[in-house]
Amino acid sequence: MALIVKKFGGSSVATAEKIMNVAKRVLDEKQPGDKIVMVVSAMGDTTDDLIHLAQGITKDPYQYTREMDMLLTTGEQVSISLLAMAFKTLGAPAVSLTGSMAGMQTNDVHTKGRIVGIRPKRVHEELDKGNIVVVAGFQGADAAGDPVTLGRGGSDTSAVALAGALGADTCEIYTDVEGIYSADPRIEPNARKMKEITYYEMLEMARLGAGVMQPRSVEMGKHFGIPIHVRSTFTNKPGTIIREEYTMEEKDFIIRGVAHDEKVAKIAVLGIPNTPGIAHEIFSALAEANIDVDMIVQSIRNIEKNVTDMVFTVATDDLGQAKKVVDKVADKLNAIAVLIEEDVAKVSIVGAGMLGNPGIAARMFGALSRAEINIDIISTSEISISCLIKGAELKKAVNAIHAEFFPENSQV
Amino acid sequence: MALIVKKFGGSSVATAEKIMNVAKRVLDEKQPGDKIVMVVSAMGDTTDDLIHLAQGITKDPYQYTREMDMLLTTGEQVSISLLAMAFKTLGAPAVSLTGSMAGMQTNDVHTKGRIVGIRPKRVHEELDKGNIVVVAGFQGADAAGDPVTLGRGGSDTSAVALAGALGADTCEIYTDVEGIYSADPRIEPNARKMKEITYYEMLEMARLGAGVMQPRSVEMGKHFGIPIHVRSTFTNKPGTIIREEYTMEEKDFIIRGVAHDEKVAKIAVLGIPNTPGIAHEIFSALAEANIDVDMIVQSIRNIEKNVTDMVFTVATDDLGQAKKVVDKVADKLNAIAVLIEEDVAKVSIVGAGMLGNPGIAARMFGALSRAEINIDIISTSEISISCLIKGAELKKAVNAIHAEFFPENSQV
Repeated sequence: MALIVKKFGGSSVATAEKIMNVAKRVLDEKQPGDKIVMVVSAMGDTTDDLIHLAQGITKDPYQYTREMDMLLTTGEQVSISLLAMAFKTLGAPAVSLTGSMAGMQTNDVHTKGRIVGIRPKRVHEELDKGNIVVVAGFQGADAAGDPVTLGRGGSDTSAVALAGALGADTCEIYTDVEGIYSADPRIEPNARKMKEITYYEMLEMARLGAGVMQPRSVEMGKHFGIPIHVRSTFTNKPGTIIREEYTMEEKDFIIRGVAHDEKVAKIAVLGIPNTPGIAHEIFSALAEANIDVDMIVQSIRNIEKNVTDMVFTVATDDLGQAKKVVDKVADKLNAIAVLIEEDVAKVSIVGAGMLGNPGIAARMFGALSRAEINIDIISTSEISISCLIKGAELKKAVNAIHAEFFPENSQV
Repeated sequence: MALIVKKFGGSSVATAEKIMNVAKRVLDEKQPGDKIVMVVSAMGDTTDDLIHLAQGITKDPYQYTREMDMLLTTGEQVSISLLAMAFKTLGAPAVSLTGSMAGMQTNDVHTKGRIVGIRPKRVHEELDKGNIVVVAGFQGADAAGDPVTLGRGGSDTSAVALAGALGADTCEIYTDVEGIYSADPRIEPNARKMKEITYYEMLEMARLGAGVMQPRSVEMGKHFGIPIHVRSTFTNKPGTIIREEYTMEEKDFIIRGVAHDEKVAKIAVLGIPNTPGIAHEIFSALAEANIDVDMIVQSIRNIEKNVTDMVFTVATDDLGQAKKVVDKVADKLNAIAVLIEEDVAKVSIVGAGMLGNPGIAARMFGALSRAEINIDIISTSEISISCLIKGAELKKAVNAIHAEFFPENSQV
């Protein structure tokens, strides 16, 4: 007997048939006495269809964020009602609740809301009545009662936060992959599925490009101490459990995975005076524009003239705006040039085991070197090491590093 | 400067283009200082599309009325968000509110809800901020906060009730006809649009088959004393104002209109004992089955044996169930036969002016007689007279009666 929150994404509920399949599967796995809370996204392309509809009114509907939220929250309201009907059709009592009805309280930053509190009174009441409770993911309501959609990865965050507020035993995130892998299986054929990973490592993996889970939902799991079980919509196999500490003998692997990120771009500001405050000048301007800077290297160009180069990376999505900001500062500093390089990628290794294990970095660089891959920039955190390389060499780099740390005949 | 509630139906907001047209028209007609509340239905076929979606889950989705309401209320939520965006795109501040947010409180009879109260605090607040307030018609929320859709004609009822609660100056119902006519213009080419009609007469017209307004919304208008202006979505011409009393010189017409109803069926129970309680036996069985009986005639079949026939009409939609109920009672009473006639229709005249004007009925029967139309059953109310005739003769009957009371060269 357990209280379990299960989250299914839009592709899992894209058609009436798929919705029936989800309901059947959940009932098949349900143990007597289990209390089940479902968190679901909008069906398949519904959100895109709604955005398209709004574009018939105005080219840029997102300028009216409150009305977009009024529009978009209907997507999940459709899927929850259908899923609740599916359960009932199969003989299981069920009830659907919008985010607002489930007590998901958000701030009022429409289309990019954050959960600020959860009052799941109604959810408890419905569970106590014996209902499976089907909650709309990705949404809540602000203090005025207006619908608000959450930012990216919002449905995962809804599910984990609700699990936390309910004191659930576990939160299951159903997805199109079977769990968290030691590398992206699309580019690393020998990638292994992990049984467990810590919140801390998962957050670092996500930050460094592993796309399965949004960092916000992992943080939420960590905050509430709710184990997050990432598993496949299509099979019954166990997936990967994200939790505070390992319970099994997986500690043998010093690193947990190889992450990569192609959506990075390099900006080099060449020939600027090497005086105090120069770094501040550039990076505070970027910070004001809300642009995250990742790897940073400063190198001496001309030691006599005390002139330096500043090189750093930003997300590809921010490149256009970053270029504008940097050009302005570069002008002011009389820089020789601003160079942009887009064909770059970041490859990283993550693992709490590397703390106090100084040989790890050397093994990573050795693997890249043997694969004849040049490293442009290196950055490190407590539990990760990242290298910026040429974009074209990314697959080769991931394969080389993965082979170094996860030899083919090793066991997970 | 006025507070006006304007209701637009689903066909008026069926596409993004039509939504823009509604917004433009409302802004064109708006006088400085006017406060505008819009009540809108779901776009075009949205409701049917949603029902179809639910039928993918279960053949009879209406068995799950609460979940149907969760599903169907999304229809208006889409149209209100788009209409609010349309106003904003045209430079007019606007905000959308669901029925629940607008304070429409209903009972918990899902899919057939009734408004039990309105607390339009938020509507007032948004009007005071200078917003055009776009409210979802056809819906509200019950005491638990669950979405509830109203029964037939629900959007009109929402609009009139909201106008009442807000103390609006008028409620405008935009529709695909130009107003209330002296007969259905589709079968009476000389039908005249009326400038005004009283609630009482309009209710009687609606009861007797005139389809423009649902009785519930007219009752609501009468209750709150809100004038209801029925007018065309497509032209700027004034329509018909439904109100308590005439303000203009339209009193000359003794009757207000000719109504007709094809959706009636005649049931004859032949050869039953003419003893006290027989009528009660038949009609209480029908009442228990929630079937409305309209015209009733009892006639003597055999005076020696004291045997009688009972003839009455029901709505075509109820015929199947009525037949079952009546067959059972007829068996018990040893009736000779139960005959059903479906090719019948009811033609009626309505007008408060016929009170104390005994010649009116004679003129109606005379018109039918000259057109060689046989009258099967006659029934009367204070302000109406109805005749049951052959269905095939309906158009001829309407034309003959209309010509009698609205001669072609007369003025409205």
